[in-house]
Amino acid sequence: MIRPALPASVVIREVGPRDGLQAEAPLPPASRATLIDTLADAGLRKIEVVSFVSETRVPAMAGAGDVWSRVRTRDGVRYSALVPNRRGAEAAVAAGGFGALQAFVSASDGYNRKNVGKGVEESMGDVADVIAVGSAAGIPVEVSLSAAFGDPYGDPASTAEVVRAVERLAELGAAGVSLGDTTGMATPTRVWDLLAALAERVTGVRLNLHFHDTRGTAMANVLAALQAGVGEFDASIGGMGGSPFAPGVNGNVATEDLAAMLLGMGIEVGVDLGKLAAAARLAGELVGRELPGHLGRAPAEGEA
Amino acid sequence: MIRPALPASVVIREVGPRDGLQAEAPLPPASRATLIDTLADAGLRKIEVVSFVSETRVPAMAGAGDVWSRVRTRDGVRYSALVPNRRGAEAAVAAGGFGALQAFVSASDGYNRKNVGKGVEESMGDVADVIAVGSAAGIPVEVSLSAAFGDPYGDPASTAEVVRAVERLAELGAAGVSLGDTTGMATPTRVWDLLAALAERVTGVRLNLHFHDTRGTAMANVLAALQAGVGEFDASIGGMGGSPFAPGVNGNVATEDLAAMLLGMGIEVGVDLGKLAAAARLAGELVGRELPGHLGRAPAEGEA
Repeated sequence: MIRPALPASVVIREVGPRDGLQAEAPLPPASRATLIDTLADAGLRKIEVVSFVSETRVPAMAGAGDVWSRVRTRDGVRYSALVPNRRGAEAAVAAGGFGALQAFVSASDGYNRKNVGKGVEESMGDVADVIAVGSAAGIPVEVSLSAAFGDPYGDPASTAEVVRAVERLAELGAAGVSLGDTTGMATPTRVWDLLAALAERVTGVRLNLHFHDTRGTAMANVLAALQAGVGEFDASIGGMGGSPFAPGVNGNVATEDLAAMLLGMGIEVGVDLGKLAAAARLAGELVGRELPGHLGRAPAEGEA
Repeated sequence: MIRPALPASVVIREVGPRDGLQAEAPLPPASRATLIDTLADAGLRKIEVVSFVSETRVPAMAGAGDVWSRVRTRDGVRYSALVPNRRGAEAAVAAGGFGALQAFVSASDGYNRKNVGKGVEESMGDVADVIAVGSAAGIPVEVSLSAAFGDPYGDPASTAEVVRAVERLAELGAAGVSLGDTTGMATPTRVWDLLAALAERVTGVRLNLHFHDTRGTAMANVLAALQAGVGEFDASIGGMGGSPFAPGVNGNVATEDLAAMLLGMGIEVGVDLGKLAAAARLAGELVGRELPGHLGRAPAEGEA
């Protein structure tokens, strides 16, 4: 066979400080800021750092403003905040300094109701509100479309429904859409089929893919998406991650594992693997458990 | 993009009772036989059950004849034994009933010396001896070519050297060659490049690929190999595995994770996922630790 064409470079959007930590016991704001700084220092150029969500529903994300004020922001890094609605968007804009806001909605009703207690239609209204607030403030809004590859809580969204949702998000003015395999149900063929359908119908939307390794398929799904031309992926340092409302569904693809594979394939990522491995160790120390990322436990080449 | 062509069916060669258990504390022969029976009952049709190696060097594999005599062999399952040399092959033939013998040699000298204390040339002689014994007994001999994608103990084998090794094994009469990523250093591009070079130079050798998940890349490497037309993979129940002489290099690709991904992609595998998951739980109970396979820890669809 001929080696498939692959992107020359890939952007990793680091979501560990938000998607990773949100399911953990709350950490002190200073520790969260230190982790963010360590990730920026490792070369990551897009980092989701906080979320402006209900502090009672997601206690680990409380204190967003406090964390954000402690981050030693650096040029060239786009820090973003996850916001659920107009109120969250306004809080993020008031905090100042974010390069992007991240809104979210599910591709299917079951997961949306489980996640935010309302239907997809109502959440699309929230997304429109966030885009309006971001637009007024001159801040681009990207949207995470969760459960795009399956939904354990109800009927999964069909390919046509996911395509239509991405179209709607583009019409609403989303600067990018992240297709989330929230519960780790994607397979490479589902990835190829969905991306092919999207390529046919939707143009001009920057896609990001967000895989969870619940069933061990995240890296294979990344490879499938790379072959379909996707050049941006969410990842979480150490492989932390999972919704606090979906117990057992843990593990974003680990930033350091993803970066190592991409670099090993000759794809430019712009990160320092040694510093990423150190960041993964720091994340594990902060949350007090061995994280699922592989690289930190692999022997160094030359050692074994 | 167009969805790449994939094999319609894949054979999983289960190596858990051998490659998996060899690095664990020794288990009672009855337990090892029960695990083998459970794997056959789950639908696996090629199982490496024992090895006839030095009992002092690999104590967990002692008692091969005892284990094998307890297995309730069933029609349609090809049970194989790993053998290092003429003496091991003769012991396996004397034990009787094996459908194949598995010989082994490394693609590079560093790993070969670490693994068996001699150079590749000398080990090629052992492989020839095993093939001669198998041939005389009417038993096909397949060969595992380890460190085919990298060698942490010395200069890695080049693509040309791996191709030449496969050619030699074919000339010696190997019924199949398993390319081993023994220390988890392969990437999808290395897989594509090596398989493309092999397809050009070597014909008529059935290839199997053997990936370790040391760096989290095993399933992506499987996907790459599938696209290159490979239709057989080694896997280990629960993701057990690793050489007792390469500490830290643990984790064959987990049988249940591999089977689930393949089935999810519409590829025929011939196994019962529920029974495989039960076999993975049994393996974890026998070795007394949580194994790295993902499927056993993933929530059932409908639960989360």
